Amino acid sequence: MAPRGTVVALSGGIGGAKLALGLARRLPPGDLAVVANVGDDFEHLGLHVSPDIDTLIYTLAGLADPQQGWGRAGETWTFMAALEALGGDTWFRLGDGDLAMHVMRTHRLAAGTPLSEITAAACTALGIATRVWPATDDRLRTRVRTDDGWLDFQDWFVGRRAQPAVREIAFSGAAAARPLPAVVAALAAPDLRAVVICPSNPLISIGPILAVPGLRDALASCAAPVVAVSPLIGGRAVKGPTAAMLADLGIGATAAAVAAHYGDLLDGFVLDEADAAAAADVGVPTLVTRTMMLSLADRERLADDVLAFVDRIGATPA
Amino acid sequence: MAPRGTVVALSGGIGGAKLALGLARRLPPGDLAVVANVGDDFEHLGLHVSPDIDTLIYTLAGLADPQQGWGRAGETWTFMAALEALGGDTWFRLGDGDLAMHVMRTHRLAAGTPLSEITAAACTALGIATRVWPATDDRLRTRVRTDDGWLDFQDWFVGRRAQPAVREIAFSGAAAARPLPAVVAALAAPDLRAVVICPSNPLISIGPILAVPGLRDALASCAAPVVAVSPLIGGRAVKGPTAAMLADLGIGATAAAVAAHYGDLLDGFVLDEADAAAAADVGVPTLVTRTMMLSLADRERLADDVLAFVDRIGATPA
Repeated sequence: MAPRGTVVALSGGIGGAKLALGLARRLPPGDLAVVANVGDDFEHLGLHVSPDIDTLIYTLAGLADPQQGWGRAGETWTFMAALEALGGDTWFRLGDGDLAMHVMRTHRLAAGTPLSEITAAACTALGIATRVWPATDDRLRTRVRTDDGWLDFQDWFVGRRAQPAVREIAFSGAAAARPLPAVVAALAAPDLRAVVICPSNPLISIGPILAVPGLRDALASCAAPVVAVSPLIGGRAVKGPTAAMLADLGIGATAAAVAAHYGDLLDGFVLDEADAAAAADVGVPTLVTRTMMLSLADRERLADDVLAFVDRIGATPA
Repeated sequence: MAPRGTVVALSGGIGGAKLALGLARRLPPGDLAVVANVGDDFEHLGLHVSPDIDTLIYTLAGLADPQQGWGRAGETWTFMAALEALGGDTWFRLGDGDLAMHVMRTHRLAAGTPLSEITAAACTALGIATRVWPATDDRLRTRVRTDDGWLDFQDWFVGRRAQPAVREIAFSGAAAARPLPAVVAALAAPDLRAVVICPSNPLISIGPILAVPGLRDALASCAAPVVAVSPLIGGRAVKGPTAAMLADLGIGATAAAVAAHYGDLLDGFVLDEADAAAAADVGVPTLVTRTMMLSLADRERLADDVLAFVDRIGATPA
């Protein structure tokens, strides 16, 4: 009989969502819960945008743009063209279909509905069995210090194309943020099978989740194995600024450095074949496998590998 | 030398916008100012929608859908499809391009910018020389009483397809609304050439404008001729519920009844050839002409006729 129980994944956007989709397709329906980063959230044109939640939802619903990884397949851009003609801000591009999510979310948040409830309703409407949980319903915003001073995350990431080197990261609002009760409950529940930290940016995708008071401790003390999948392949990120940030902040852009960054949270670490040599430098059990996820089959195969790995760890007395 | 001076038009949506476009094309740039109905404004999905202002802007900018008269040519509907998939409200259809106006307006209103300033900025961005003035920057909402009780205007007009007979009309907020200072100033200015009440619904398009304290008096006392163009042709409206409302409220669905409804505001009345016989029942000078505006040439020709008519009245000692 195949193992059962809740698998809790921690994820940012594109890379994490790929593995989340693989896990969702290989686990029994409803066994997966994904804790999503909200540090990238921001208000744009008065709309509340939750980029990582949306990427997860679109990916899990099969609506994601298969080329760019974010946004929706078959998206149209009439809104942006009209906005530009009106002299509006166009530095952050909002697709016409994507706007439905932002408008509905903003409207419901203004009415006092928590982000988690809005997210759950979207998942239900789109037929997603996986639970997608914001790490917190409270306001938590990633900010980065560069040589140009402190910048809101999207101003840096999109507005400045993630170009200025990051000297420091802060999570505004984190100290007062309360973890989503469902996350805390799932991590303490006896049916917890594993926690999988997806191959997302450890600093700005997973970092904001771990910055919510109580979540790091809940992970460290949970009974099930916690494993992370390295977001680096041969010292490079598949996409995005992960490697540059790790280097700029002195952590080091290597799989071993990522494992060391997570430290005692981990019971296991998954790294790419390209980084096999680094496995010796990781202080917890490792799985060396192919982590590049180009096809849907790649996502499912990596999910299978990770699940087999966590179940092996879980079967080994600590 | 052609007459100069400001022509102030009062307008609702589609029908009024057609004549406003004709006037804008036949007058020297900047000589036209259109006072727009805001009684149809409403909040939908948290967005502030100003249907008549938008119809005027799109029409004057050459962006209007030539078939339906409202909305934008070449509009796409990806937002609505995505919203429906998310389980959102779809009874009021918002086009993707149209959303740019609503999002920008909502965002700027929330920041404290008056509706008139936002409207002026949109006109400038779209190259519209005509001034488009909301009758008031304050909240004024048309409500209708039907056998189902009081309904917000759009709930009745779009939500119920204007089907339930209207027993009473109210303009919520009108008593406290302040007229736009620019409108009051234009009506009192020595260069005022004429006031043209466009062929809009007298009750729910022009009515909310006249309900703003001070505006009816400013029209009644202005030095230039005030003329209205009948919205009826042979006792029928070109589009919309005008005839039914006039009948249901006991005013009468005839051109003469419309003239009587405006009463002593008028110095002249323009009615369609189909209603020529009614001219004898109108107590002010009349112009009988073709008022149906199917083509752009129709709009310009009617504008020419109306301008010649107001200038004749203006040249006649009262």
